[in-house]
Amino acid sequence: MKPIGLAVIGAGYWGPNLVRNAQATPTLRLEWLCDLDTDRARSVLGPYTTVRTTDSYEQVLADPNVAAVAIATPAATHFDLVRAALEAGKHVLVEKPLTPSSAEAAKLVDLAEEAGLTLMCDHTYCYTPAVRKIRELVHGGEIGEVQFVDSVRINLGLVQPDVDVLWDLAPHDLSILDFVLPQGMRPVAVAAQAADPIVAGRACVAYLTLWFAGETMAHVHVNWLSPTKIRTTVIGGSRRTIVWDDLNPQQRVSVHDRGVDLTPASRLAPDERRAALISYRVGDIQVPALPEREALRSVMEEFATAIHEGRPALTDGRAGLRVVRLLEAASRSIAAGGSKELVEGDS
Amino acid sequence: MKPIGLAVIGAGYWGPNLVRNAQATPTLRLEWLCDLDTDRARSVLGPYTTVRTTDSYEQVLADPNVAAVAIATPAATHFDLVRAALEAGKHVLVEKPLTPSSAEAAKLVDLAEEAGLTLMCDHTYCYTPAVRKIRELVHGGEIGEVQFVDSVRINLGLVQPDVDVLWDLAPHDLSILDFVLPQGMRPVAVAAQAADPIVAGRACVAYLTLWFAGETMAHVHVNWLSPTKIRTTVIGGSRRTIVWDDLNPQQRVSVHDRGVDLTPASRLAPDERRAALISYRVGDIQVPALPEREALRSVMEEFATAIHEGRPALTDGRAGLRVVRLLEAASRSIAAGGSKELVEGDS
Amino acid sequence: MKPIGLAVIGAGYWGPNLVRNAQATPTLRLEWLCDLDTDRARSVLGPYTTVRTTDSYEQVLADPNVAAVAIATPAATHFDLVRAALEAGKHVLVEKPLTPSSAEAAKLVDLAEEAGLTLMCDHTYCYTPAVRKIRELVHGGEIGEVQFVDSVRINLGLVQPDVDVLWDLAPHDLSILDFVLPQGMRPVAVAAQAADPIVAGRACVAYLTLWFAGETMAHVHVNWLSPTKIRTTVIGGSRRTIVWDDLNPQQRVSVHDRGVDLTPASRLAPDERRAALISYRVGDIQVPALPEREALRSVMEEFATAIHEGRPALTDGRAGLRVVRLLEAASRSIAAGGSKELVEGDS
Amino acid sequence: MKPIGLAVIGAGYWGPNLVRNAQATPTLRLEWLCDLDTDRARSVLGPYTTVRTTDSYEQVLADPNVAAVAIATPAATHFDLVRAALEAGKHVLVEKPLTPSSAEAAKLVDLAEEAGLTLMCDHTYCYTPAVRKIRELVHGGEIGEVQFVDSVRINLGLVQPDVDVLWDLAPHDLSILDFVLPQGMRPVAVAAQAADPIVAGRACVAYLTLWFAGETMAHVHVNWLSPTKIRTTVIGGSRRTIVWDDLNPQQRVSVHDRGVDLTPASRLAPDERRAALISYRVGDIQVPALPEREALRSVMEEFATAIHEGRPALTDGRAGLRVVRLLEAASRSIAAGGSKELVEGDS
Repeated sequence: MKPIGLAVIGAGYWGPNLVRNAQATPTLRLEWLCDLDTDRARSVLGPYTTVRTTDSYEQVLADPNVAAVAIATPAATHFDLVRAALEAGKHVLVEKPLTPSSAEAAKLVDLAEEAGLTLMCDHTYCYTPAVRKIRELVHGGEIGEVQFVDSVRINLGLVQPDVDVLWDLAPHDLSILDFVLPQGMRPVAVAAQAADPIVAGRACVAYLTLWFAGETMAHVHVNWLSPTKIRTTVIGGSRRTIVWDDLNPQQRVSVHDRGVDLTPASRLAPDERRAALISYRVGDIQVPALPEREALRSVMEEFATAIHEGRPALTDGRAGLRVVRLLEAASRSIAAGGSKELVEGDS
Repeated sequence: MKPIGLAVIGAGYWGPNLVRNAQATPTLRLEWLCDLDTDRARSVLGPYTTVRTTDSYEQVLADPNVAAVAIATPAATHFDLVRAALEAGKHVLVEKPLTPSSAEAAKLVDLAEEAGLTLMCDHTYCYTPAVRKIRELVHGGEIGEVQFVDSVRINLGLVQPDVDVLWDLAPHDLSILDFVLPQGMRPVAVAAQAADPIVAGRACVAYLTLWFAGETMAHVHVNWLSPTKIRTTVIGGSRRTIVWDDLNPQQRVSVHDRGVDLTPASRLAPDERRAALISYRVGDIQVPALPEREALRSVMEEFATAIHEGRPALTDGRAGLRVVRLLEAASRSIAAGGSKELVEGDS
Repeated sequence: MKPIGLAVIGAGYWGPNLVRNAQATPTLRLEWLCDLDTDRARSVLGPYTTVRTTDSYEQVLADPNVAAVAIATPAATHFDLVRAALEAGKHVLVEKPLTPSSAEAAKLVDLAEEAGLTLMCDHTYCYTPAVRKIRELVHGGEIGEVQFVDSVRINLGLVQPDVDVLWDLAPHDLSILDFVLPQGMRPVAVAAQAADPIVAGRACVAYLTLWFAGETMAHVHVNWLSPTKIRTTVIGGSRRTIVWDDLNPQQRVSVHDRGVDLTPASRLAPDERRAALISYRVGDIQVPALPEREALRSVMEEFATAIHEGRPALTDGRAGLRVVRLLEAASRSIAAGGSKELVEGDS
Repeated sequence: MKPIGLAVIGAGYWGPNLVRNAQATPTLRLEWLCDLDTDRARSVLGPYTTVRTTDSYEQVLADPNVAAVAIATPAATHFDLVRAALEAGKHVLVEKPLTPSSAEAAKLVDLAEEAGLTLMCDHTYCYTPAVRKIRELVHGGEIGEVQFVDSVRINLGLVQPDVDVLWDLAPHDLSILDFVLPQGMRPVAVAAQAADPIVAGRACVAYLTLWFAGETMAHVHVNWLSPTKIRTTVIGGSRRTIVWDDLNPQQRVSVHDRGVDLTPASRLAPDERRAALISYRVGDIQVPALPEREALRSVMEEFATAIHEGRPALTDGRAGLRVVRLLEAASRSIAAGGSKELVEGDS
């Protein structure tokens, strides 16, 4: 298979990672690094490179050797850049969030599908060995029915100039949940609280509650002001509970046979029903071995393979659209003081 | 000072701890352990004791050697037992929550004040060396203005027969906040979300958001279903941030000189206002040495000293009442699907 | 079974723990707490007790209600106290080390065996759920052949007036190894290095190397000067490796399927022998669930049961003797500048 | 300053790191990557490079644009490669250990000094922000006099084909000690124990004891077979103790005001001398903020600056020679069953 010609758009915070991983992916051929600041682009590539830089997106899109673009620019520019790329017949990998508006995100999804082009969201965490293993465990029934989710992603983070902490960090948690939860399990409502205690002009701390059908609830805490770094997600199941601690490289994922079991009253004889129906499992913990592999390398390979095979990427535009819909509903809730907001489902 | 005659009421989960610590407190004289199940009471005392047991609360209250009672019975019984004790002229130490109803809690507070008796709530955590140090740091101005609070108290806990996880665990977090935050800083509104994913008949997971005047928000996560145990509270300040990890005995409290600073625009010349106003502090961490001391021992001493000096205990009935008001507002919010509920202030 | 009359000898550092656990053990009947300082003894028992105190060891030994003594006095007094008890026909539980001299320890072992009395060493750690599980795993073949052991027990500890750090802390590690390693696996030689960097007059830091038959080596690090507390033992096996971290209550024992495997050259065809024979296992970690139970409670029960059944205790005098022989050899090595010293085997 | 022309020799395990960091260092100009396997060299550079590869060391040394070489080949080749480079007038950066023989290492040091060329050892850890801070604390007197050192570097590591675990891992610990301890504080004797429990043909576990003048002792544990990864060094001082945990990115270095103090008897009145002279400090912990910076980048800059300024590098050939002398003495000790071996001092 001939390598796919690729241009990386944006040499800012994330662009250099795309450049490095694209260069290490044999199924891609990096043709351009495009940034309005070409000095910056050249500095990212370093002095020993054969890759070209440009500040002209038009030049990139006009280049017949470029079959795909990877876009790492501010979210506000995504819609125009992605649309232009799709209209020029290029496949697109785009950073999260897909766009700041679900209406625009939906248009891009439609556009890509009509044109038969790959539109992939760089939901990087979904490509970590840890999240892949969690998906495998959940989808394979290892933990039983999902009962609750709690996700914390806090750190002394950069206060972004264009987005609040919700749009900056929660896309990670929401895209991971979209990826690992059973297919039919989608949030139906959202509420969120946020604060801007340092008066930065945008929320720096946010709490997000997601309701699924039934009693299942997920909760996400994102925070730019925490002095300690925590990246932990707990997925409670009826049989087992998964704890993912991404900052513990020796034990990122552990599966706990601990929990509370309830004997359904319907299974009991009438005179037993008043008896204590609750029992506790305090069993072993299993820590599955995980390979060490940079997630972005797998993102690049998935992008190339999806293009090659003409199939949707694992984290396609529709996944990006679902994440944007949740973020929009959460923002509405914050604006309304924490109200429960319904989430638009897949059309 | 002659030791104060004490009876412990309730030989269940917490009563044995009261018995043990009362026996070790020279300013108290343990006279009775009272429980409807006297076998249980005798078993708690063990075979080598000179302390008497009884199943008659009347007998205890009628004993002139008993000047004070310590009540560790289910919350639903608190109102009647505390009222009877106060009416019998006894000082009272009572487990949290003071009562399940703020109206009843307020009556008990009034009753005690009218009778000139000590009514103290066993907000045990407030008497840990860690929380005392945190209070000292916050009140002393070490961390500047409080900007946010995040408290997590999760564990595979016992599903209580009479209360949900909110009323079981959140009193700890709420009484700690009541104790350590600056006096003027009281929550004005509350919202809460809860779930009962195992269909136990009561909430097993709950998230609580508290709003203070201004932009400050506190958040509490309590959970009976978590396979891992976490007891961590972060108190973010404008100068420093406190992290309290109660499960790390070598480093329970750490004070982080890390945070985001904002230069107020009003201090800048007009042409500077557009410039980046945000700067990051990434300074040292200080871990204050703490004594190792059982909190309940200090509770007992404070109870005896407050009685002796005729002053309110550090965690008096009013503190207990404030906690109950927050819990009530949170329960209203849960019932209303997460609405923001105002909190009744001190009268 | 009628409870066994017991006297605790010594109300110092460890005595109170013996008193508390003896009182909680139904198969024992605590008759006396004996200490030269009877005020101290009374203070240990507290003001509500029916247990008697005395400063007369003779009185204790003369009491026909006393069938057994538990001795928690300085090591230098053990020989005389244990001998007197055995000669008075009493069963004995004695703190570690059994005595400071293996010749004396051997005499006590002989004396007890001749008299048909139980002589048990309080090797407390052997009765923790963690060490019991480790013994079960090792003896059951779960980890294959033991390949190496590394044990670290460091802390800011009390500089003892009568013993150095080796005799204070290493008995824990050595008694644990004696307990968990396969029966035939006994150390044949020892070397040790020690230092007294604060010029306390006795070693405060010591390293101990034990050689077994074959290539297996064990190493012990004990230290009174470490600012951080570590209590970790690693037992490497040919199939699995056990890590015991006693300060991690959520995960004290973990069994790692990680290691280096070597294909024995003899199993290979001649032309394969030069090929790489090394492979790496990077498998899962298993964390067995353990009950929470105070070890000293189990010590008391084992003492009572061994007396009742007339069988040697799990950690009998012979185990205590083996530990003393290792300590003696280590002290000889330190005195000789770290020489390898042979260890006297079981007679 | 014109960049210094550099060739990297060896495209194996460590070479790629040298290549990457050399490319990122403006004061260096990477001219060649030289390896007997040029396919491997080309693969390390990747498909987008302008850097040339060769399998001819002669060609590299003959290139007048090459002023310096960085050698990352097996230790056994170091002597010949370094000598040839020095004889060709090139400055040299060489991986640890400098050579497997101190006699040869001394020759290289002399050769470099005679030729006025920079000979630098890549003691990478000395260039981490953590070790630099530790050196600053120790040299600045923050911890008082050094009393003991304990260093643990264990992991499931690659069993090397050419060196044992001592020569593979202990150079890190020994070079760090050489770097951070006060200048006058050099080991005078060494003892070591080692084992090869998997019969790999070379030691896989080793313990190293170093004696300094006076009572100070250092101990190093290196291990290829440990399932858990530990990289911790404790440096105990008379005033403070430093704990460096390299695997805790949030708190790599902490300074503990904890320890045992002894009042020298000479300062006491005669009748006080028998009294307890020991007291315990249980003070705060201070965690200094450290920058995040790749050590190898600083190695490259130091190499360039040392060449430019014509001064010895911070970790020069003499430092490398001292490390090799310690390793040799340790190997002698292992061969002799753990004897204490004197260490040759600086000439």
